[in-house]
Amino acid sequence: MSITHPAGFVAAGVAAGLKSNGNKDLALVVNQGPTFDSATVFTSNRCKANPVLWSQEVVKDGVVKAVVLNSGGANCYTGPEGFQTTHAVAEKVAEKLGIGAIDVVVCSTGLIGLANDRQHLLDGVEAAYAALSATGGDSASQAIMTTDSVNKQFVVQRDGWSIGGMAKGAGMLAPALATMLVVITTDAIVPAAELDKALRAATRVSFDRLDSDGCQSTNDTVTVLASGASGVQPTAEEFTAALTEACVDLAKQLLADAEGADHEISIDVLNAATEDDAVEVGRSVARSNLFKAAVFGKDPNWGRVLASVGTTQAAFDPADLDVAINGVWVCRNSTPAEDPAGIDLEPRKVTVTIDLKAGDQTATVWTNDLTHAYVHENSAYSS
Amino acid sequence: MSITHPAGFVAAGVAAGLKSNGNKDLALVVNQGPTFDSATVFTSNRCKANPVLWSQEVVKDGVVKAVVLNSGGANCYTGPEGFQTTHAVAEKVAEKLGIGAIDVVVCSTGLIGLANDRQHLLDGVEAAYAALSATGGDSASQAIMTTDSVNKQFVVQRDGWSIGGMAKGAGMLAPALATMLVVITTDAIVPAAELDKALRAATRVSFDRLDSDGCQSTNDTVTVLASGASGVQPTAEEFTAALTEACVDLAKQLLADAEGADHEISIDVLNAATEDDAVEVGRSVARSNLFKAAVFGKDPNWGRVLASVGTTQAAFDPADLDVAINGVWVCRNSTPAEDPAGIDLEPRKVTVTIDLKAGDQTATVWTNDLTHAYVHENSAYSS
Repeated sequence: MSITHPAGFVAAGVAAGLKSNGNKDLALVVNQGPTFDSATVFTSNRCKANPVLWSQEVVKDGVVKAVVLNSGGANCYTGPEGFQTTHAVAEKVAEKLGIGAIDVVVCSTGLIGLANDRQHLLDGVEAAYAALSATGGDSASQAIMTTDSVNKQFVVQRDGWSIGGMAKGAGMLAPALATMLVVITTDAIVPAAELDKALRAATRVSFDRLDSDGCQSTNDTVTVLASGASGVQPTAEEFTAALTEACVDLAKQLLADAEGADHEISIDVLNAATEDDAVEVGRSVARSNLFKAAVFGKDPNWGRVLASVGTTQAAFDPADLDVAINGVWVCRNSTPAEDPAGIDLEPRKVTVTIDLKAGDQTATVWTNDLTHAYVHENSAYSS
Repeated sequence: MSITHPAGFVAAGVAAGLKSNGNKDLALVVNQGPTFDSATVFTSNRCKANPVLWSQEVVKDGVVKAVVLNSGGANCYTGPEGFQTTHAVAEKVAEKLGIGAIDVVVCSTGLIGLANDRQHLLDGVEAAYAALSATGGDSASQAIMTTDSVNKQFVVQRDGWSIGGMAKGAGMLAPALATMLVVITTDAIVPAAELDKALRAATRVSFDRLDSDGCQSTNDTVTVLASGASGVQPTAEEFTAALTEACVDLAKQLLADAEGADHEISIDVLNAATEDDAVEVGRSVARSNLFKAAVFGKDPNWGRVLASVGTTQAAFDPADLDVAINGVWVCRNSTPAEDPAGIDLEPRKVTVTIDLKAGDQTATVWTNDLTHAYVHENSAYSS
């Protein structure tokens, strides 16, 4: 059930002293081949952390042999010194593995503006290298946790090949990925160009549809590594379907563990003119603090749904919208319909359905409610 | 200190039974001339309430003789029945005043999807008409309150003429005005076309720069009425300056009374390439739940400021940004600078300064922190 489930990968997670509580905070994932194809997507935030600036160069040729990740500090806005730390970590990994540093992706997560202790990181790489094993995936997934309450892993098993994944992230999940680190491994044979296409298709309908609080991280990275160790080359369709299954499952695990959330809200937008319209409408509702606070209060306040829909540029007739909450159509033709009193918002899962009546496209965006725990956790994070 | 301060206006506020607590909930403002020039701006939300749909037609010819406002129900998404209620209220006002209904602006505020009791409204108009007086402005300003803790009024006195204003709104203050009703009166002579130009200039740098929680109402209306009763015709510059002063003051009163806020945050964006860039950057920070929760926790988390700046399309070099909180430059050239420990976030007023180093344009956006009280108030509002 981990990134070392597919053949051709070893991994480890160790405590390098970056977290003050002594928990594991450094993970190393190594592709042992025979192939080293890879694809990676990064945050679209223009303020990118040093590890992202480094890794953007690493991934350009489609070859990645190792990923080193640390929690306990984002290494973002730490200046040239911070970039040199990232570089030194990549060099250390390369030296231990006998590869080039330019094949080592580096990921960091934690507070922005906090310099990581370089010596702790380098010592951590030594320890992780010594601990590398074909069963080390679980340990690696623990070392990337920050405010996560559980580690997130997933395996897709196909005939003769598989995909393994791990993810961290419990806040700042947003439009184009956010404080979210994901490493996915596969022992299938998948050329880098095809891997890139599959990864973009999979993230578009998974991590990109997750919008916990509208904030967007400086460090998000999703990397997929293909070892080819199974000797099997699935079709592009087969592989994309399996990768999408893994990404959707990991995205839902992130949603389920979002900071301080009481509810997991699925916003299903029906009959949009275009898929982009459906996503825009879903995202606008996902970002309505008023609606999210209402869900926390178990108040089926559909007026706040419509008020959010109205802020978009999507095609629809404002006088002809339908809205359901948990299957109860509280609004038909933009007019009150079924009694909201029939809606039970006690359960953790909530579904909002919006019928735009403007076409035949659909999309689902996932978000959480806005809770006291969210405010508490995010007001106290760095203090 | 009210909308009846300028000559030529009478007003009243009465309890019409729309609010279950028996408080005043219906206001009537009447321009007695000799001029009836007016200008109005509405919410840009595409899902507009019935009173907005009605009033958009009323204001087209630049002539408005009366404004009737109610709290206790937004009359939004209440169907054709709701529109007929708005129309009936305008007709009733017109009948009492001996004018045409097409010169009566109607405004409503409160819950969306809740039909207002038509008879209560019509009886309220009768009572308000009977109570109209040249000192009724204060009473009118009380009748439009919803979750406001205080009524908001302002007067600008110039040589021989004046401006009076009242505003309500304590949540949903957002990009293009939100659950915000504002009536402004003046006894200056200002032709409708000039009034429109002045109002747009004034709201652009006041109500439009207020972004309490990114949500945008279905009912926002700002109406200015000019009676000409002073006999004085100020220059366009003089009038625009006075109107802007009134709008900025009322906007700041709204900010100060925003639902559940502990802090009033002023985001000053310096040296932007364009004013639009400066506003986009300010608004992105104003909408960061993570930053707003940090301010609530008295945590000078400047990393969250930069993460928000990075999500914009404004011109800047991500490696060369400066950020100050309450005057302490915690980040210079995108690198930690002065010690954040020197920042005192106990006081209610907080200033964030962002230097984009990309031009010479500036803008200020105002917002609040994200607090437990905000979550509480908005999770319990309709229950």
